[in-house]
Amino acid sequence: MRVMNVVAGAVVLCGVLAGVVAGQDRAAFAPVDELPWWPAAERDGFAAYEARLNAIPDAERLWAWHDLLASRPHVAGMEGDRETIGTLAAAFADMGLEVEVHRFWAYLSRPIAAEVEVIGGGLLPLGETPLPEDPDTAADPVGFGWNAYSGSGEATGEVVYANYGRREDFERLAALGVDCAGKVVIARYGGNYRGFKAKFAEEAGAAALLIYSDPADDGYVKGLMYPEGGYLNDSCIQRGSIVTLASPGDPLTPGVEATRDAPRLDPDAVALPRIPVQPIGWGAAHTIMRRMRGDAVPQGWQGGLPLPYRVTGGDGLRVRVKVEQERRIVESANVLATLRGREEPERFVIIGCHHDAWGHGAADAMCGMISLMEAARAFSERAAAGERPRRSVVFAAWGAEEHGLIGSTEWVEGNRDRLEGVSGGGAVAYINLDMASMGPNFGAAATPSLRRVIASAAKAVPQARDPERTVFEAWGAGGEPGMGELGGGSDHLPFVAHAGVAGVGFSGGGSPGVNYHTAYDTLRWYRHVVGEDYEPALMIARMTVATAARLADAPLLPLDPAAGVSSLRRHLRDITKRGVETGVFERPEAEGGEAEGGGGGLGPVAKELAALDAAAAECEAELVRALDAMEAAMAEGRLTGDDIARANAALFAAQRAWSDGAGLADRPWYKSLYIATDPDSGYGSWPLPGLRRAVEDGDAEAVRREVARLKAVVEMLRAVSASLHSGE
Amino acid sequence: MRVMNVVAGAVVLCGVLAGVVAGQDRAAFAPVDELPWWPAAERDGFAAYEARLNAIPDAERLWAWHDLLASRPHVAGMEGDRETIGTLAAAFADMGLEVEVHRFWAYLSRPIAAEVEVIGGGLLPLGETPLPEDPDTAADPVGFGWNAYSGSGEATGEVVYANYGRREDFERLAALGVDCAGKVVIARYGGNYRGFKAKFAEEAGAAALLIYSDPADDGYVKGLMYPEGGYLNDSCIQRGSIVTLASPGDPLTPGVEATRDAPRLDPDAVALPRIPVQPIGWGAAHTIMRRMRGDAVPQGWQGGLPLPYRVTGGDGLRVRVKVEQERRIVESANVLATLRGREEPERFVIIGCHHDAWGHGAADAMCGMISLMEAARAFSERAAAGERPRRSVVFAAWGAEEHGLIGSTEWVEGNRDRLEGVSGGGAVAYINLDMASMGPNFGAAATPSLRRVIASAAKAVPQARDPERTVFEAWGAGGEPGMGELGGGSDHLPFVAHAGVAGVGFSGGGSPGVNYHTAYDTLRWYRHVVGEDYEPALMIARMTVATAARLADAPLLPLDPAAGVSSLRRHLRDITKRGVETGVFERPEAEGGEAEGGGGGLGPVAKELAALDAAAAECEAELVRALDAMEAAMAEGRLTGDDIARANAALFAAQRAWSDGAGLADRPWYKSLYIATDPDSGYGSWPLPGLRRAVEDGDAEAVRREVARLKAVVEMLRAVSASLHSGE
Repeated sequence: MRVMNVVAGAVVLCGVLAGVVAGQDRAAFAPVDELPWWPAAERDGFAAYEARLNAIPDAERLWAWHDLLASRPHVAGMEGDRETIGTLAAAFADMGLEVEVHRFWAYLSRPIAAEVEVIGGGLLPLGETPLPEDPDTAADPVGFGWNAYSGSGEATGEVVYANYGRREDFERLAALGVDCAGKVVIARYGGNYRGFKAKFAEEAGAAALLIYSDPADDGYVKGLMYPEGGYLNDSCIQRGSIVTLASPGDPLTPGVEATRDAPRLDPDAVALPRIPVQPIGWGAAHTIMRRMRGDAVPQGWQGGLPLPYRVTGGDGLRVRVKVEQERRIVESANVLATLRGREEPERFVIIGCHHDAWGHGAADAMCGMISLMEAARAFSERAAAGERPRRSVVFAAWGAEEHGLIGSTEWVEGNRDRLEGVSGGGAVAYINLDMASMGPNFGAAATPSLRRVIASAAKAVPQARDPERTVFEAWGAGGEPGMGELGGGSDHLPFVAHAGVAGVGFSGGGSPGVNYHTAYDTLRWYRHVVGEDYEPALMIARMTVATAARLADAPLLPLDPAAGVSSLRRHLRDITKRGVETGVFERPEAEGGEAEGGGGGLGPVAKELAALDAAAAECEAELVRALDAMEAAMAEGRLTGDDIARANAALFAAQRAWSDGAGLADRPWYKSLYIATDPDSGYGSWPLPGLRRAVEDGDAEAVRREVARLKAVVEMLRAVSASLHSGE
Repeated sequence: MRVMNVVAGAVVLCGVLAGVVAGQDRAAFAPVDELPWWPAAERDGFAAYEARLNAIPDAERLWAWHDLLASRPHVAGMEGDRETIGTLAAAFADMGLEVEVHRFWAYLSRPIAAEVEVIGGGLLPLGETPLPEDPDTAADPVGFGWNAYSGSGEATGEVVYANYGRREDFERLAALGVDCAGKVVIARYGGNYRGFKAKFAEEAGAAALLIYSDPADDGYVKGLMYPEGGYLNDSCIQRGSIVTLASPGDPLTPGVEATRDAPRLDPDAVALPRIPVQPIGWGAAHTIMRRMRGDAVPQGWQGGLPLPYRVTGGDGLRVRVKVEQERRIVESANVLATLRGREEPERFVIIGCHHDAWGHGAADAMCGMISLMEAARAFSERAAAGERPRRSVVFAAWGAEEHGLIGSTEWVEGNRDRLEGVSGGGAVAYINLDMASMGPNFGAAATPSLRRVIASAAKAVPQARDPERTVFEAWGAGGEPGMGELGGGSDHLPFVAHAGVAGVGFSGGGSPGVNYHTAYDTLRWYRHVVGEDYEPALMIARMTVATAARLADAPLLPLDPAAGVSSLRRHLRDITKRGVETGVFERPEAEGGEAEGGGGGLGPVAKELAALDAAAAECEAELVRALDAMEAAMAEGRLTGDDIARANAALFAAQRAWSDGAGLADRPWYKSLYIATDPDSGYGSWPLPGLRRAVEDGDAEAVRREVARLKAVVEMLRAVSASLHSGE
């Protein structure tokens, strides 16, 4: 029996008003039989298979994969990209997998030249200092740092410092009476996706934007610098894309696959950045900022440079920024390698990691890719020995992720039917390994339905550098481990938000250093900072194997539909609280209805939220009952093949229930009503994004519409619970 | 009726174990009649007198006093000291006050020379950069920064960084395996009284200590630097004494007045610092620290210099520190000026502020002294016009405070009988104004018995720069204002901790800058950073007048004995919690008694604490009842002169009840069982210090002894409540 915790629905609003916020989801780590998706009689068999699989990943092989994949730069669309694609295809083929090189043609930007000059003070350096200890640091393929999709042009202006360049930072500048029009804005990295810094700067009228890495965030304030330690030095520059369109992927083919002949938008009609945007190191930033002469910054805007930060530079300081880039359609490719399942080959688990980088990419993303390679080798070797999982496993190396999740998005857009199982089959789950093996501290962000299977896997894998404990024990040391919601910023996004596939991103942390998107992302950096033992990558490989093996081999799909409903209720409480703050509940109905309960009371919109919560509570209770009964029947071997097939269809449908073909009102590419990216930060996650948007806008009518859509999800899930065979 | 909140005593331990900690004291800001210490018929009369008093303080006069007192350096025992004493005596005499120049002969240190050298890297600067905008910054009377009472000598060694040089920092170094023996330790200012940095460094075997001001604490990280803004620049050096003896005052005459002929200790028998200790600016610190080559510092040790902080310098870095000082007996003086009370001249309120400084001392302490002068002028002018308060008011300017609270301590040691009212009279309260007028945000730390009268005064004084509100309204904006306990670091200490006088320190904050103990503590700095309007100093003058007028003129002494009992109970809960942490309650009795209640239960010591709390609860209830009845009778004019005299004797005795002639077990000069300084930080406060020490030491027998002493206090206070005439 699983522990259930159903709260009467009508209580939810009171709870919120009293400041009560729920903690972890019910189902994530309840003490359960660890392999409930098999008949009891078959569990030992799976455990033995899993042990054989996880005996295969090996530190020396991880080192060798790393040498193979991160010894040269391989920026998407540049020299090295094609070679990486070929290397990966050959490696997968060597394993005996069915390899597909999936080509796409995307609108990429290419840097030509960049200059930043303090007028009267000379040009600033725009590239990393090569380190004699690490020759790879001298091999930047471009020769200077750049932001993909920067506008081209030249601008000279006075300077404004905009802190992290978040929406609230620009609002603060406006409140301080600081006009960004025609100015060169300088903002530090951190706090949001860099594309939003550029978007907000452009909206504020800036003539150009400089983005720098502050030593308080990534440098000496954090610890010793590379090559002695692992943190950034004054020359290090974070590269990266700044596109902020309404959907990821190729900018010219939103929603459809970027084949060679796909219909394409006119580039001039696409809202790509217009102003020049240039990333710099803090050495260059210091040269500018120590010449600033304006007022001191507000609380929280001071960084780690040795000077008092100021909001404006004054008219004695002018900076010139020149960026020249070219945008054109470029061919690149994903590499997909399939291990065919023995019984349900059309149903598959996908494990992915991007293969492109800003340079060598030893950390980003190759430290995740090497774990993927070892997972692929494990499944392949056992398959060659006659042990093949029930369903298929697809290993995917995505191209051009760094430019906007392009390879994965194009593949998802071209394979929605297959993912959704329109003609049977379908994607059970997506596991993302982007930059996953950065340290021994395991972490995961996941769709709720996957949390239980991940916890189960974590109990079967030893902790890196502490093999006496399991990943689960170390992860939750001192309590239950937390699994966050998925945000943006990597290839899980099209799967989860566009195709409605259950997804998870694995990560490892705890290594003292940062080299993100710099020319110091090299093999030597990785081995110096993360370690030469490759234990973190080994742990990630084994977690990937254990999770994928459960998803691919269990007779009953290890998807937990109750967890999503539980999370829905928790997010509903948070959003309701937010609604109380914005006052949306006190607004009279658009149709002229009278708000009940007097002036300060909650209106009918709030009542509908409470009704949704009540329905969700009932649904959750029903699902838990049905799942418990089904698992009990499974354990005892009372389910027939047909029972299991029907249950799996229902479980698969339950995941799909969260997708709405119409998508979000303001971002229709986003089909999931459960999760989207934070529309103002890009990296953060927005649960229940349609409802959240409506509440943020204070639009009572929209709240009502979104509540209705979520109610439809809940109704579908109740139908699912009815379809789960109880075995009784 | 006053609101009462008596909790059953036996509950206290449970509450503590459940993590419940009490908030503000009961009596501080309960809605009360604001002048309960007068018959209702006389309250308007006092209010009118107070209004006439507070019409006198004036911004132009404050400016003029400031010019008079802070236009030249006046370090104790050096040139300028004698002149300041003469100036103050003349000024008080001009007001018609009875002036006494109270001379003392104290063992002071005098700087002769200092050098800090990076071996192979040259000498470091040890003085502030003179600023052309502020010629006073060029007039450092010594020519270099110094720490009074440094050892003399020369040492060369490798470098160890000790963060703030707190006990826990040196413990951390030991845990890291870092040996300070023979090393030059460098520590940053902040976190404790600098004398403890020197004491702990010496105990760790350091050969020398450098103390610097980190930009994260006082410099550019906080804001713009002087002369543009108000924060320290790279050259600024915090001077200050580093003596840490068992009592403040002249090191050679502990406990007795340092008259010319007093018996004196042999200086060699006094535990003054032995190693050379030198304060430096962060420019000099940077020159050293950027040459350090050891491991990165632990979490929280990083400061604001532009480098990763390291724990050790390595053998490639050696620093030489040379300090030459002379110690000898020097004459200085306090200046006391008395306004004789009209009815009870032997009973008096003292208002004090030190007059010595590390240079010009425009901020420290003269910005408080000018408020004192205006308070003195207000009382004097009204007295000259025939309005004289019932009791005396003494205005005191203390000498040599900066070297160890010397002038005030010697005066208190020589006047204990007078302060304690041994032959009638006695000190009602002490108001300290050291550096009080630094900004518009009012603050106070006070003995509990004074909190009510301070709140009453704060309701009668307009807020600086916001005269539509009272100090009370602005102070408690968004809730009730908090009044902390008194710690160490200024002249209230001998009054409160040694003589048992009720005390309060006023302060004003909210100005963006720091010049503490630097050569930049000038008039121009003050007017640039705190302001030219002198509104903060005006507010402090008026708060001083309003508080002193209540204390000196009310028929009934405005001392609240119930507040101390309430605070006792709160501190008892905190200390009990600490005792649960140290496990002192689970230790078996020294006499072999059996702990009751089984293994994990609380022993008899805890029961005694609970009994003390129960007695205090009863005592508090009785005091509140008696005070309410007395005040009701007072309001209605039902108290005779004899009633009032008896009540005042009881109220005075109640304050004295907290003093125990034997003093604290480890620091017998400290007589108060209610409050002492934190013995490891010097600035912080330790409520119930005897009990706290016993609990920290885990000494159950000592806990029992201290509980008995506090119980005796409570019994005395119950006797007081019986003496308060109820008028019924």
